[in-house]
Amino acid sequence: MTTIVDHMRIVIVGGVAGGMSAATRLRRLDESAEITVVERSGYVSFANCGLPYHVGGVIEKRSALLLQTPESLYERFRIDVRVGTEAVSIDREAKQVTVRDVETREESVLPYDKLILSPGAKPVLPPIPGIERALPLRNIEDTDAMVAAIENSKTAVVIGGGFIGLEVAENLLHLGMKVTLVEAMDQVMAPLDPEMVAPVHRRLRSGGIDLRLGSGVTAIGERDVTLADGSSVPADVVVASIGVRPEVGLAREAGLKIGERGGITVDERQLTSDPSIYAVGDAVEKSDALGESPILVPLANTANLQGRRVADDIAGRGRPARGVMGTAIVGVLGLQVAVVGMNEKRLRSAGRPYRAIHTHPGSHAGYYPGATTMALKLLVDPETDEILGAQGVGEDGVDKRIDVIATAMAGGLKASDLAELELAYAPPFGSAKDAVNMLGFVAENRATGWEKCKQWHEVAEAQNDGWTVVDVRTPREFEAGAIPGAINIPVDELRERLGELPDGPLLLHCGVGIRSHVAYSALKESGRQIANLDGGYTTWWAGTHFAS
Amino acid sequence: MTTIVDHMRIVIVGGVAGGMSAATRLRRLDESAEITVVERSGYVSFANCGLPYHVGGVIEKRSALLLQTPESLYERFRIDVRVGTEAVSIDREAKQVTVRDVETREESVLPYDKLILSPGAKPVLPPIPGIERALPLRNIEDTDAMVAAIENSKTAVVIGGGFIGLEVAENLLHLGMKVTLVEAMDQVMAPLDPEMVAPVHRRLRSGGIDLRLGSGVTAIGERDVTLADGSSVPADVVVASIGVRPEVGLAREAGLKIGERGGITVDERQLTSDPSIYAVGDAVEKSDALGESPILVPLANTANLQGRRVADDIAGRGRPARGVMGTAIVGVLGLQVAVVGMNEKRLRSAGRPYRAIHTHPGSHAGYYPGATTMALKLLVDPETDEILGAQGVGEDGVDKRIDVIATAMAGGLKASDLAELELAYAPPFGSAKDAVNMLGFVAENRATGWEKCKQWHEVAEAQNDGWTVVDVRTPREFEAGAIPGAINIPVDELRERLGELPDGPLLLHCGVGIRSHVAYSALKESGRQIANLDGGYTTWWAGTHFAS
Ligand SMILES: Cc1cc2nc3c(=O)[nH]c(=O)nc-3n(C[C@H](O)[C@H](O)[C@H](O)COP(=O)(O)OP(=O)(O)OC[C@H]3O[C@@H](n4cnc5c(N)ncnc54)[C@H](O)[C@@H]3O)c2cc1C
Ligand SMILES: Cc1cc2nc3c(=O)[nH]c(=O)nc-3n(C[C@H](O)[C@H](O)[C@H](O)COP(=O)(O)OP(=O)(O)OC[C@H]3O[C@@H](n4cnc5c(N)ncnc54)[C@H](O)[C@@H]3O)c2cc1C
Ligand SMILES: CC(C)(COP(=O)(O)OP(=O)(O)OC[C@H]1O[C@@H](n2cnc3c(N)ncnc32)[C@H](O)[C@@H]1OP(=O)(O)O)[C@@H](O)C(=O)NCCC(=O)NCCS
Ligand SMILES: CC(C)(COP(=O)(O)OP(=O)(O)OC[C@H]1O[C@@H](n2cnc3c(N)ncnc32)[C@H](O)[C@@H]1OP(=O)(O)O)[C@@H](O)C(=O)NCCC(=O)NCCS
Repeated sequence: MTTIVDHMRIVIVGGVAGGMSAATRLRRLDESAEITVVERSGYVSFANCGLPYHVGGVIEKRSALLLQTPESLYERFRIDVRVGTEAVSIDREAKQVTVRDVETREESVLPYDKLILSPGAKPVLPPIPGIERALPLRNIEDTDAMVAAIENSKTAVVIGGGFIGLEVAENLLHLGMKVTLVEAMDQVMAPLDPEMVAPVHRRLRSGGIDLRLGSGVTAIGERDVTLADGSSVPADVVVASIGVRPEVGLAREAGLKIGERGGITVDERQLTSDPSIYAVGDAVEKSDALGESPILVPLANTANLQGRRVADDIAGRGRPARGVMGTAIVGVLGLQVAVVGMNEKRLRSAGRPYRAIHTHPGSHAGYYPGATTMALKLLVDPETDEILGAQGVGEDGVDKRIDVIATAMAGGLKASDLAELELAYAPPFGSAKDAVNMLGFVAENRATGWEKCKQWHEVAEAQNDGWTVVDVRTPREFEAGAIPGAINIPVDELRERLGELPDGPLLLHCGVGIRSHVAYSALKESGRQIANLDGGYTTWWAGTHFAS
Repeated sequence: MTTIVDHMRIVIVGGVAGGMSAATRLRRLDESAEITVVERSGYVSFANCGLPYHVGGVIEKRSALLLQTPESLYERFRIDVRVGTEAVSIDREAKQVTVRDVETREESVLPYDKLILSPGAKPVLPPIPGIERALPLRNIEDTDAMVAAIENSKTAVVIGGGFIGLEVAENLLHLGMKVTLVEAMDQVMAPLDPEMVAPVHRRLRSGGIDLRLGSGVTAIGERDVTLADGSSVPADVVVASIGVRPEVGLAREAGLKIGERGGITVDERQLTSDPSIYAVGDAVEKSDALGESPILVPLANTANLQGRRVADDIAGRGRPARGVMGTAIVGVLGLQVAVVGMNEKRLRSAGRPYRAIHTHPGSHAGYYPGATTMALKLLVDPETDEILGAQGVGEDGVDKRIDVIATAMAGGLKASDLAELELAYAPPFGSAKDAVNMLGFVAENRATGWEKCKQWHEVAEAQNDGWTVVDVRTPREFEAGAIPGAINIPVDELRERLGELPDGPLLLHCGVGIRSHVAYSALKESGRQIANLDGGYTTWWAGTHFAS
């Protein structure tokens, strides 16, 4: 089964990320295999992830999106690539796939020894009146349609504030259009927790996007869109980026097991419930590196790696899949927004204990020009110190920090271990104590119980319970905006003004948590009940104003 | 010993990276300790790493370099900071340090319960005639002197092509000076292997620096400098950046153990041979994460982390030091040059087996504007697949890849594990198969023995042994420059032109190794003896022309 047989026949459904990665790797591992790729659309090996940027003219040439063609794949890899060809059914008994020419509707049959399904996902199109006018963006044909549609358009409504929605909105804005981004939830970018998404909302608005949160689209008219709050928004063009669902029609018809989340069920070798059929990419449910139940992670990195792994498995070189962490990033209007692993919302709804840490480090040494401040959040298992997830938002260097944390997670490093990572430092690139080290310091202080903290959403309750909020920033910062009810004693005066502190427990805070950490340490031996407000005023403000 | 005693007296020698990190952390852990920091120069807590950039005017304000002052450190941390004060001797028996006011020469005695030495390193100043005119750059006073010296100068010679030499050279160039960089070795940046340094040499020259390799300075005249090759170079200003040596005078005098490399010997708690005296930073020998014998690693990250760790140890919260990997980076004329762990030179001279991998990935997806090509090198233990080191050179994204690899090393990930890392991908930030994943793919292909390779420096010998070099690039690329003796059969024609391949073993190559990897796979089942030239023509060219 897992050794290379002469003239093994492999059929692959879907010729983009997962499918084509499997095909090329398989050819490299097996010169004699017969490899056939069927692809419903007119193109293979295209850069899905680049589509929004071609719409916006950032990637000028359409041809840049086409990384390979059927011809080039034949020339280099002797892969038989059939575009405009849909797999319509699988006869598992006979081990053959019926395929249909999309134009001529002619059908033919492809026998296989191994079948690989990488059919991807399809855009969610909710049953709103007028939805047929909403343009999805998934392939080259969609892109051509969108480019044509915006040609003489001035206004656009993008429905859905996920990764792709943000990219499309930015790109339409870039073209000079008036863009409204409509999101039914009260925040864009669901993988972020609300206090982390605040700067994204601000940036979208300051960048010129009309952001409508908490109000879905109820109807799409000919030149406008109606929202649940009754308002109407001009819309020469409507883009549907509400999300995607695994494309499982073919697999379901063939009786393959479909999981609870609606994706094809696979084992750690990427095998479906049929031992001759593999499935990879957006269409499958992935095992969660951090949880029990399978998850849907529609990302290109995972699809490509899974495709390559299946080729290895067929060639007898497989190794079991690791659980998936879902490391992802999007750039929007100069902000980098990146995530890995679990977020607080998911942890909370799973009833899983966690500790959250918020920091606001510089992208590089503050004394070197061009440093910008980012917001980082780390989620930690309070029992084991395991890193459960991280989020980052900022103009620069967020990608690096999230990749470092993702790698630490893959290597099984604990949150406190981040303190001792040796990261490359010179002033233009980082800090002597890098942002990731700093997360480790804080994690260690919390893990050992040395520093108690409270979260932004616990402030009001703490005040009700008799805590006094002590703002240790300068009077000037305090006057510019403070937590209601807070008193102000600057950290540098604290030791002399101890007498001014009221009785009862004290919730210390500064701008981001560093000065109040110093204040905390100065009071620690006093025997008073104290806590540091995690992430300081910045996180409190972001959390209590995230939608604005 | 390791519990917090009331009014513990801590004396710290050296008030910058290691020393001040220890002092501030210690205050946070112990509000009642008496903490005294003595610093010979006039400043503490300054940004050493920013000094070259202030010389060049990139960091405009001198005050930006001064992160704290004695006053601010007293206000916030109640630390007794004495600048202009040198520790001149240690009475270990009496547990006291004699300090001397640099100006008044007045001496006094500071008793300690624990003493922390963080005296740093001192610039190497070789006994060349005229060396007194060479300016070192280590502290604020040096910086002021250099700023004054260049005021009316037009020409400069920088002696030494290490991290600091490159930074200073770039910054003097930035000021419009005519800069000659003199390096006695045949390459700058000793941590890089020669084939990796080639683009740095090219960039220095194309950027306008007169780079003199392989010829040291023999004499410094009043307005010029004479090199070993007899040439003379104009030099209104001469900068000495030949390297640094641990500052161990005080420790040696006190009878503390000094190691073979000339640094203070410390254990994994940073304790010297005296259990009441800790030492950290540039002055100490570090245990090597990858080797047996201690190493000198004069880096800010390590100094800061060690300082913090000593404070922890004194407060009874210590954890043993990890071995050091020496992750480092420098930016020069738009290039990022970064390293971690061992290089090939060191492995070879230690007689340690290794496998080298060279790749030339894009900083992000090639279809998105602005992607640049970097050179990466990974060194792997051929028995265990352990990552031994990495090097990177490129305009963008090198810092991220080296940090990811450093983190993988810290987490104990194997080279092949890099293949499955989930790194954040969107077109502006990376590739679906990221540069680091790609290193993992290649590592895995080599580790399993699937692909044999030869290195750039083995080509000539292989040809002597009867190997034919087969260049699988396009005829156009071949004509633009090829390995002498190579024949040209483009990869896409290889399967039809098998008959043209000569007998005997074949060394396949393309530009960087990817197309020849495909060619290799196409020939693999033929039974012929084949190898892929690691890093392709690019690495071969860089290695055989590294000094030019
Ligand atoms: C606009 C856009 C931007 C994105 N940006 C990013 C990003 O920045 N980062 C990131 O990580 N991910 C991004 N993604 C997601 C990424 O592209 C997908 O995760 C990845 O392509 C999934 O690979 P796949 O092989 O599973 O499916 P796909 O790459 O979608 O390929 C599936 C193919 O199968 C074909 N197919 C389906 N059914 C059949 C059938 N029955 N017969 C024949 N052919 C069939 C489809 O036509 C499709 O071309 C983006 C996606 C889109 C659409
Ligand atoms: C120009 C320059 C650029 C650099 N760039 C980088 C970079 O980009 N990245 C990086 O990682 N590292 C860089 N470094 C190295 C980094 O600054 C050092 O590794 C780090 O500062 C070492 O910390 P330390 O505490 O051991 O010594 P230092 O920070 O040098 O502090 C030692 C202090 O001790 C004082 N001292 C010595 N003896 C006595 C005594 N007997 N009594 C009183 N005081 C004494 C000295 O005056 C000195 O100020 C750079 C260094 C320089 C000089
Ligand atoms: C274009 C496409 C067909 C390329 O697939 P590919 O040939 O597997 O990938 P690459 O060209 O990057 O080459 C990678 C191979 O080169 C090898 N390689 C890379 N650098 C090398 C070097 N210096 N020396 C030797 N081998 C090297 C790798 O090991 C890998 O081979 P392996 O899988 O046999 O180990 C496929 O990625 C694709 O269709 N992509 C577009 C779709 C997509 O990914 N969309 C989502 C993102 S926008
Ligand atoms: C300036 C200097 C005195 C600062 O030292 P420091 O106070 O230890 O460092 P920072 O201001 O970065 O603060 C770090 C502290 O804040 C804590 N912190 C950071 N973010 C936090 C947050 N959001 N919540 C709570 N605590 C936080 C960290 O845990 C750490 O405290 P800990 O060590 O008790 O765990 C010292 O770094 C120095 O002298 N630097 C200049 C010299 C130098 O480093 N040169 C070489 C490089 S150029």
